[in-house]
Amino acid sequence: MTFLLPEGSLEKDMLALGAAARSAAAVVRDASPDQRSAAIAAMARHIRACASDILAANRRDLDAARTRLTGPELDRLALDAARLEGLSHAIAAIAAQPDPVGAEIARWRQPNGLDIARVRTPIGVLAVIYESRPNVTADAAALAIRSGNAVILRGGSECLATSLALHRAIEQGLEEAGLPKASVSMVPTADRAAVGLMLQGLNGSIDLLIPRGGKSLVARVKADARVAVLGHLEGLNHVYVHASADPAKASAVVVNAKMRRVSVCGAAETLLIDAVVAPQLLPRLAEDLHAAGCRLRGDARARTLVPGMEAASDADWTTEYLAPILAVRVVDGLEAAIEHIARYGSGHTDAIVTEDAVAAEAFLNRVDSAIVLWNASTQFADGGEFGFGAEIGIATDKLHARGPVGAEQLTSFKYMVRGTGQVRP
Amino acid sequence: MTFLLPEGSLEKDMLALGAAARSAAAVVRDASPDQRSAAIAAMARHIRACASDILAANRRDLDAARTRLTGPELDRLALDAARLEGLSHAIAAIAAQPDPVGAEIARWRQPNGLDIARVRTPIGVLAVIYESRPNVTADAAALAIRSGNAVILRGGSECLATSLALHRAIEQGLEEAGLPKASVSMVPTADRAAVGLMLQGLNGSIDLLIPRGGKSLVARVKADARVAVLGHLEGLNHVYVHASADPAKASAVVVNAKMRRVSVCGAAETLLIDAVVAPQLLPRLAEDLHAAGCRLRGDARARTLVPGMEAASDADWTTEYLAPILAVRVVDGLEAAIEHIARYGSGHTDAIVTEDAVAAEAFLNRVDSAIVLWNASTQFADGGEFGFGAEIGIATDKLHARGPVGAEQLTSFKYMVRGTGQVRP
Repeated sequence: MTFLLPEGSLEKDMLALGAAARSAAAVVRDASPDQRSAAIAAMARHIRACASDILAANRRDLDAARTRLTGPELDRLALDAARLEGLSHAIAAIAAQPDPVGAEIARWRQPNGLDIARVRTPIGVLAVIYESRPNVTADAAALAIRSGNAVILRGGSECLATSLALHRAIEQGLEEAGLPKASVSMVPTADRAAVGLMLQGLNGSIDLLIPRGGKSLVARVKADARVAVLGHLEGLNHVYVHASADPAKASAVVVNAKMRRVSVCGAAETLLIDAVVAPQLLPRLAEDLHAAGCRLRGDARARTLVPGMEAASDADWTTEYLAPILAVRVVDGLEAAIEHIARYGSGHTDAIVTEDAVAAEAFLNRVDSAIVLWNASTQFADGGEFGFGAEIGIATDKLHARGPVGAEQLTSFKYMVRGTGQVRP
Repeated sequence: MTFLLPEGSLEKDMLALGAAARSAAAVVRDASPDQRSAAIAAMARHIRACASDILAANRRDLDAARTRLTGPELDRLALDAARLEGLSHAIAAIAAQPDPVGAEIARWRQPNGLDIARVRTPIGVLAVIYESRPNVTADAAALAIRSGNAVILRGGSECLATSLALHRAIEQGLEEAGLPKASVSMVPTADRAAVGLMLQGLNGSIDLLIPRGGKSLVARVKADARVAVLGHLEGLNHVYVHASADPAKASAVVVNAKMRRVSVCGAAETLLIDAVVAPQLLPRLAEDLHAAGCRLRGDARARTLVPGMEAASDADWTTEYLAPILAVRVVDGLEAAIEHIARYGSGHTDAIVTEDAVAAEAFLNRVDSAIVLWNASTQFADGGEFGFGAEIGIATDKLHARGPVGAEQLTSFKYMVRGTGQVRP
């Protein structure tokens, strides 16, 4: 879609973009699964073919952003040939995933002979508002087409040139497969007013808003949106080492949950350890964590067991560090652990380490988080690890989707009722 | 809950009501299925036991409303011993329904040995905003408890005394079964500002708003809510009589879809008839509909086939009559029928009558409504007819739930992951 923004016409142009997405959504919905697969595969090919343009655009973004962004922020924004190849490869994998549209979720016959099937359908028009990660542009486009939806993308202003270059390649892929270019649109301006208009729904053209980024972005979208939002808030995740924990499993799970990658939403942020085993186990866990490069901040009881540990304040129980720091609290039993998680957790991912099946099942049942684990690392919070393929995030809300959001979670459903002339008495 | 409303304290009291509901929700969630069943059964018993108080309150409501409401409105509001018995009976049936909480929706094992189960969980706190139908008070309370949720009820001001009397009986049932009274709260004021506060979410205490009532109520809630809404808009439902329709089935389905009950959301409002069969079939359908007491409003082609038929204007294609009136349009084939429904329909329930399986499957696939039927009446749009038990409405949105909303649709889910010490590579 050629989309220019002369002065003062933002609202009109955004509404036109919404209307075009709405029309395109009907075409994507009615396309065959093979056509959707072909479009996604073509997107991956065209991204490879446009690599030099995309990398050049990325260098312009990096040059412009260098004075304003920190090192890690610049690193998230940066593309090179290897990263771009990884991005194409990820989309090609989505092309090979099964198409969820039309799949029967359930089917049964009523006593009057009516044959009722519950069948997956696309949602319609998604809108993804994200920060400066180029891979989201590609992932979101591919997952939207895989699930039979159209999508409106609005990336961070720092990666606008990169996003637009990626989007041109995506449009070429759509065109090659005979799908409308408006199936994947990109808001072509850094003007923040565009986000405000999207939050209002573009005159009914947006069915679902997906904010993907930091806490403040997600919180703003959730507070101000007038359309449905699929929110994934922070991962304030806990590992609870129960009185009957196996020490070797406890160490492996805790170190992996915290340190495998500290910047992902599935990373653990707080260790809860049972007072019964803390004297024996906490010093060992502290040693293993230190050896892996992790700093600990403990409550008073933890600090008496591990000399030299930094002190935790109340703020530590609600801080998503995304860094090699772990808060540590000694708790008096399962109930206290469940209470701590209910009070301070974010409902994302929480784990118990124990050999006691009764305690484990109580934890799995009573901790009200999207993902609850027994004797496994919180870092398994990932659509790929669940067998869902690519994901657009981990939903922490309880409506529509919860946990990893892949193509299947981006669908709705309808009931198909097949009769032989039945009327209702 | 004793809940008085001195001057000026509405916001404070509503926030307290929200906080009490949030606390109660954790207790309802962790209760056993048997305890939830016992509470619902006790609610039904206490409603029977309080019949004279409830009927006296209803007479006060009716006396106060007599000058302001129409006959049908008064009739919806009115209770007598038989209706009250029907209402108790409906709740008792919900007590006997299976409890959805904890049910496994799916379970699989990953190659690394992780055992992943997707398990139903309650949503938390529901809020139901409805008009003056006393049965909604009872149904919503029972369905909320059945699904492990707490609920805040806000009924129409015309039935406030009736609702409060019913609510006192419901509280007695909760208390008898050991559940907190705040599991089912009732906003005890007709002040419309209470609704505004609920739309803001009561400081995070409401997880899902369910408006149940006329189009303007639902539209206002959807436009102004800052929390998730499960909306059911109007049922602008179509029956399309295809060129290969069996005439006897067409007549039976069309007459039933329109005339079985004209005031329900599953009633048909527009008849689309294929131009190929209209000359033979439409006069017969018109005769059968007239005989059943239905008026027809047709487009130009329909009127040439049925002399004396009233003329339809464009407004008729978008009017939910809820009355014995049917709009009639002659269409040129399946594509034209699908286009008409996409343009004018409300995405609720649409049916095709045909003996041609290819046409039927195309209709079922391409009409994007919550319920699509082949050779069956649109009046089957009902949770009971789907085998779901009691329902709180038919959702026309595509997120979370679509179609009949019963106890199962009022749940979320979480993933329970059982491991043996797995860590993520």
